[in-house]
Amino acid sequence: MSNSIGTIFRVTSFGESHGRCVGAVVDGCPAGLRIDDVFIQRELDKRRPGQSGVTTPRGEEDQLELLSGVFEGHTTGAPIAMLVWNRDADSSKYDALRYTPRPGHADYAAWARYGGLNDHRGGGRFSGRITVGFVMAGAVAKALLDSVGVEVLAYASAIGGVEAPEVTLEEARENTERIPVRCPHIPTAEKMVAAIEVAKAAGDSLGGEVSCIATGLPAGVGQPVFDTIEGDIAKALFAVPAVKAIEFGAGRQVASMRGSEANDPYILHEGRVATSSNNMGGVLGGLTDGMPVTIRCAFKPTPSISLPQCTVDLAAMEKAEIELRGRHDPCVVPRAVPVVEAMVAIVLADHALRAGLIPQVLGSSK
Amino acid sequence: MSNSIGTIFRVTSFGESHGRCVGAVVDGCPAGLRIDDVFIQRELDKRRPGQSGVTTPRGEEDQLELLSGVFEGHTTGAPIAMLVWNRDADSSKYDALRYTPRPGHADYAAWARYGGLNDHRGGGRFSGRITVGFVMAGAVAKALLDSVGVEVLAYASAIGGVEAPEVTLEEARENTERIPVRCPHIPTAEKMVAAIEVAKAAGDSLGGEVSCIATGLPAGVGQPVFDTIEGDIAKALFAVPAVKAIEFGAGRQVASMRGSEANDPYILHEGRVATSSNNMGGVLGGLTDGMPVTIRCAFKPTPSISLPQCTVDLAAMEKAEIELRGRHDPCVVPRAVPVVEAMVAIVLADHALRAGLIPQVLGSSK
Amino acid sequence: MSNSIGTIFRVTSFGESHGRCVGAVVDGCPAGLRIDDVFIQRELDKRRPGQSGVTTPRGEEDQLELLSGVFEGHTTGAPIAMLVWNRDADSSKYDALRYTPRPGHADYAAWARYGGLNDHRGGGRFSGRITVGFVMAGAVAKALLDSVGVEVLAYASAIGGVEAPEVTLEEARENTERIPVRCPHIPTAEKMVAAIEVAKAAGDSLGGEVSCIATGLPAGVGQPVFDTIEGDIAKALFAVPAVKAIEFGAGRQVASMRGSEANDPYILHEGRVATSSNNMGGVLGGLTDGMPVTIRCAFKPTPSISLPQCTVDLAAMEKAEIELRGRHDPCVVPRAVPVVEAMVAIVLADHALRAGLIPQVLGSSK
Amino acid sequence: MSNSIGTIFRVTSFGESHGRCVGAVVDGCPAGLRIDDVFIQRELDKRRPGQSGVTTPRGEEDQLELLSGVFEGHTTGAPIAMLVWNRDADSSKYDALRYTPRPGHADYAAWARYGGLNDHRGGGRFSGRITVGFVMAGAVAKALLDSVGVEVLAYASAIGGVEAPEVTLEEARENTERIPVRCPHIPTAEKMVAAIEVAKAAGDSLGGEVSCIATGLPAGVGQPVFDTIEGDIAKALFAVPAVKAIEFGAGRQVASMRGSEANDPYILHEGRVATSSNNMGGVLGGLTDGMPVTIRCAFKPTPSISLPQCTVDLAAMEKAEIELRGRHDPCVVPRAVPVVEAMVAIVLADHALRAGLIPQVLGSSK
Repeated sequence: MSNSIGTIFRVTSFGESHGRCVGAVVDGCPAGLRIDDVFIQRELDKRRPGQSGVTTPRGEEDQLELLSGVFEGHTTGAPIAMLVWNRDADSSKYDALRYTPRPGHADYAAWARYGGLNDHRGGGRFSGRITVGFVMAGAVAKALLDSVGVEVLAYASAIGGVEAPEVTLEEARENTERIPVRCPHIPTAEKMVAAIEVAKAAGDSLGGEVSCIATGLPAGVGQPVFDTIEGDIAKALFAVPAVKAIEFGAGRQVASMRGSEANDPYILHEGRVATSSNNMGGVLGGLTDGMPVTIRCAFKPTPSISLPQCTVDLAAMEKAEIELRGRHDPCVVPRAVPVVEAMVAIVLADHALRAGLIPQVLGSSK
Repeated sequence: MSNSIGTIFRVTSFGESHGRCVGAVVDGCPAGLRIDDVFIQRELDKRRPGQSGVTTPRGEEDQLELLSGVFEGHTTGAPIAMLVWNRDADSSKYDALRYTPRPGHADYAAWARYGGLNDHRGGGRFSGRITVGFVMAGAVAKALLDSVGVEVLAYASAIGGVEAPEVTLEEARENTERIPVRCPHIPTAEKMVAAIEVAKAAGDSLGGEVSCIATGLPAGVGQPVFDTIEGDIAKALFAVPAVKAIEFGAGRQVASMRGSEANDPYILHEGRVATSSNNMGGVLGGLTDGMPVTIRCAFKPTPSISLPQCTVDLAAMEKAEIELRGRHDPCVVPRAVPVVEAMVAIVLADHALRAGLIPQVLGSSK
Repeated sequence: MSNSIGTIFRVTSFGESHGRCVGAVVDGCPAGLRIDDVFIQRELDKRRPGQSGVTTPRGEEDQLELLSGVFEGHTTGAPIAMLVWNRDADSSKYDALRYTPRPGHADYAAWARYGGLNDHRGGGRFSGRITVGFVMAGAVAKALLDSVGVEVLAYASAIGGVEAPEVTLEEARENTERIPVRCPHIPTAEKMVAAIEVAKAAGDSLGGEVSCIATGLPAGVGQPVFDTIEGDIAKALFAVPAVKAIEFGAGRQVASMRGSEANDPYILHEGRVATSSNNMGGVLGGLTDGMPVTIRCAFKPTPSISLPQCTVDLAAMEKAEIELRGRHDPCVVPRAVPVVEAMVAIVLADHALRAGLIPQVLGSSK
Repeated sequence: MSNSIGTIFRVTSFGESHGRCVGAVVDGCPAGLRIDDVFIQRELDKRRPGQSGVTTPRGEEDQLELLSGVFEGHTTGAPIAMLVWNRDADSSKYDALRYTPRPGHADYAAWARYGGLNDHRGGGRFSGRITVGFVMAGAVAKALLDSVGVEVLAYASAIGGVEAPEVTLEEARENTERIPVRCPHIPTAEKMVAAIEVAKAAGDSLGGEVSCIATGLPAGVGQPVFDTIEGDIAKALFAVPAVKAIEFGAGRQVASMRGSEANDPYILHEGRVATSSNNMGGVLGGLTDGMPVTIRCAFKPTPSISLPQCTVDLAAMEKAEIELRGRHDPCVVPRAVPVVEAMVAIVLADHALRAGLIPQVLGSSK
């Protein structure tokens, strides 16, 4: 049951990197939501491999197949099963790696967990490719949130030590898709591209950070004490391969602040309660406070690098060395941006439903 | 249902800061675990208020009441209900605050969530006092993990910008309880105490960081893709009031590393697979890799400060100013240390059970 | 985690027959529900032992202790913990039974499940006494359902082969509490009392049936395909000790009907869709159809009888004979009536919340 | 989330009667289980339409498509997604029925639940066709149970008032598939066929009962107090369209027994504890007692009949009459037999995993 997430809006993930397909089942989406195949496909295209020089050349079309739950262009309240077929899987290079786990990958941990019986080809279930299903489900979540005026936007805020300055919501909305690294601050984006190219040329890889902002949620969304907005978003994001740290609002910086600095003072703004700063990232006590929810998560560099690495031969239980020659992203951040957006949207759609913000049937009084 | 956490080892929290009691029900603990009241009480004493000059003077004895699930000194497999009675609640100062939410507290968000019907006294369900229940449940989890050789240790690693250098496991084990701030590096601990005293004198408060290390887990524990070790720990820790950021291993630093630096090379160590560094914090692909699980989380400064603060009067919908005169910790970190330890233990006990590491009946072949 | 039931309105049960207490935590009850201690106590009194000559003489007061979740007479949205202390437990007779399981009781199955480590005294967790917690939680559920016009009524419909004719809702409402066996058809009730007295005099016990009717639910409540109204009620009722069969509407009789008899024709009744018969018991496709939900469940005779019975000595693994001398109900049905009502109410409260029939804050527009 | 069932072995159902496909995702199956496509296909063939004169002529091949979770002939521990494509859906007759709900069907309840937005064609999600997914998932569960010696067998025990005498396990195993009605008592089976033909000729339909027996479970499987063997089986079976009553062991008959008759005395049999009768149906206190688990469930007659029926026009809100001309089973029981078997197997596989009877990796020491 560990391949499902959410309480009311519940996503079940399936598929492997080199199996027949990757997909997802979305259960709990209210009836009456208009489903636009073109919109879901556009989201898929954002994480599709081979989209630019800074991504892997694996040539997948990632064409959406909508299997159930939609009738006459709208959701029916039934589970929405979706998948894309795997077409360009090249498993030839993986046999050699079956017993020599790649450092930084899940190979060894998975081998221990599944007694060596997991599908190891291309990382199997641990491949970034499974996030195809997350993005499809996230597209449904984004459409659902849009129906109540909630918007989720993610963008690259750091790559290989190159940090973007803060951007406005409008800049994020308009510029993120303009440059393949998905950083809305264009001069920084150009430096990021350059940094990736340098690392790639060296057979190495880079990490980075993705920021995400969600607007339009009223105060009081969340389910304390355990199903907090922060906890549920963090849990969802740690399912994205390579994430190692998650922060809300001022994040780790709060540790060196004083209370008088960190506390966001309440003000009245256009007749509504707001705060004059947002160090708390829009969440207090696990509940939204009406301010934008701001998230930042750190991605490690792609573990697949072309340089020789030390490992262990699990069959012989002796030292070994490997050099990887697959098709990899030199930095996962650009393609992770739509995935972060998807995961945050999935969590917030679930919480919006739990809070009763979204009716059980859209376009109905119920 | 949001007041329960865990899949097999499941903890349900109840109680309020100024209600009759705070407590927890632990469901799913195997039969046959020896329950030592003295051990649970000792854990409670670590987070008890009034234990030192750096904590709140609220005078609670926090005496454990074990209500069910234990027979002849051992768990029976039945739910373990536990509570402590609230004795020293002083609600007099909270009436004035009912409609003027304290900045940095959950007051306003809770007011929005519950239509103003929540128990606001002392923060009610949003008070740090509810972590009494977490610590009781965590003590059971720690005993259960101890039965299979897993140890969880937390300590203060930063307070008010004063950072501790890295410590060994032995230093953490021996020194953490020696100084009230719970930092095992004694010279740093002394600086932290001084920093707290300065902030307190100024009517202000400090944030900080808690580090936690879990040892003894074999490789392969965890339930991908959503019930990851990192995700479940993060979710549990964000239920602890004041946490704003969570990192594993090298954490946010991975964002500026290259793959060749970040990847932990595999080695053979005493006949077993290990890694020569631990940037991944003992988790890959959501699964343990056999190395210690290392966690770091950032706490914001106590929002209750004595300085005047801007807020809004929710009844009149107009600007207001408040000054707080309650009994508060100038820094929550020292008392948060046992709480972090408890939450991590609760998650790992659950995952150890899910992985089949712990039998359903202890002291039995089953 | 098996001691919790429900998805939004979630009840966690704890306590043992001869431990310190029995209780429940209700999580997910909306804020703003008026909680009337007297009402909950009255529900408890209905299942209290010693209430009449047809029940066990164990002398418990079963006084409600409300521990959390209620403030100023209303629910707050926080978990509601409740318990009653055990006062009159007499464990003296149970030591002799520790290794000679009583036929018809859970003793042997529990011994196998918990390796002999369960609290065996008075049946421990398997005692009918744990239904005290169900009744307390059910009282909250009944109050919540009442706020949206849903009523749940149970009564004894058969005892020891004495069957009651069908009664109207009004008869059930008015007569059920008039005679200790809780059968609203008075002449039948008197025969049932006589039958119980005969069985009791013979040292034997009787089974029977409880009927339950829930009115006021609109059509369309339920969550197919697995969280059906029937399935969730059945699961809840099988947690009540001694239930062996559950039927909805015409129940088992449908098996020998033709489609043209069984189908309930749709009609218009006072401007609303209704059916002219109710063989389906108000549920179709797992959803309510707007007609009363009608349930019938069969209880086995109390397994504790004074006659000698064959068993096995689990320590010596040899044949044994036992005669029970505890204080037992000669027929559980009269005291099971409020328990059935409670379980059905718990399930329907959960489904009413899931269907959005009940707002998250009562007395608010939210 | 209501389209998933199970705690560790968790099945998610998707698809509609006249959509593109029907399917299931099985999550939580241990790695290392040999998956035999031919075996799953054979199970599907048992419930396939058009298999005999007593079933619907809808001509589906129901060819298994295994999408994920299997590698080199074995499960990998990853979710197993499976589907069959719908080929012979004939939706032409359903437009006329969109606003005139068929008596005995879920049409009206679904219309109320989903605001008329559900896929009504062929009953959509409420069609018996969704049990294709149950049977595929059940086949995996049966294979898993087989690995630990647990067998689940179902058969028709009554149709249209024709009741079969009790049969031995061997008779059930050998004869059930010999006659299309799936009653292992051949002379009774012939009478059942005749009864179905009479009803069919009259444009009417018949109900019946399915019995199921599960052998090979040790004592002590189950998770009291709420996740009982009986409760979880009942919940699963009420998801099968047309089930209206469920009984265990002597079932409803216990209500008119005395304790001295109903109690199953313990005996020693081949050195193990057993009972000399099985009125309890192998379950006590929600736990298995080591005896076969025996279940009986009642199916209502197929609601689709060719006779004219009264209904309501939901658009005009006025009386209406309908005559159905689709392709229907005159009695669902024969094709329900493999579905009951599947559901019971799914629940028992889950409980066997929860009890630790089945390791997390098959063919491994773990």
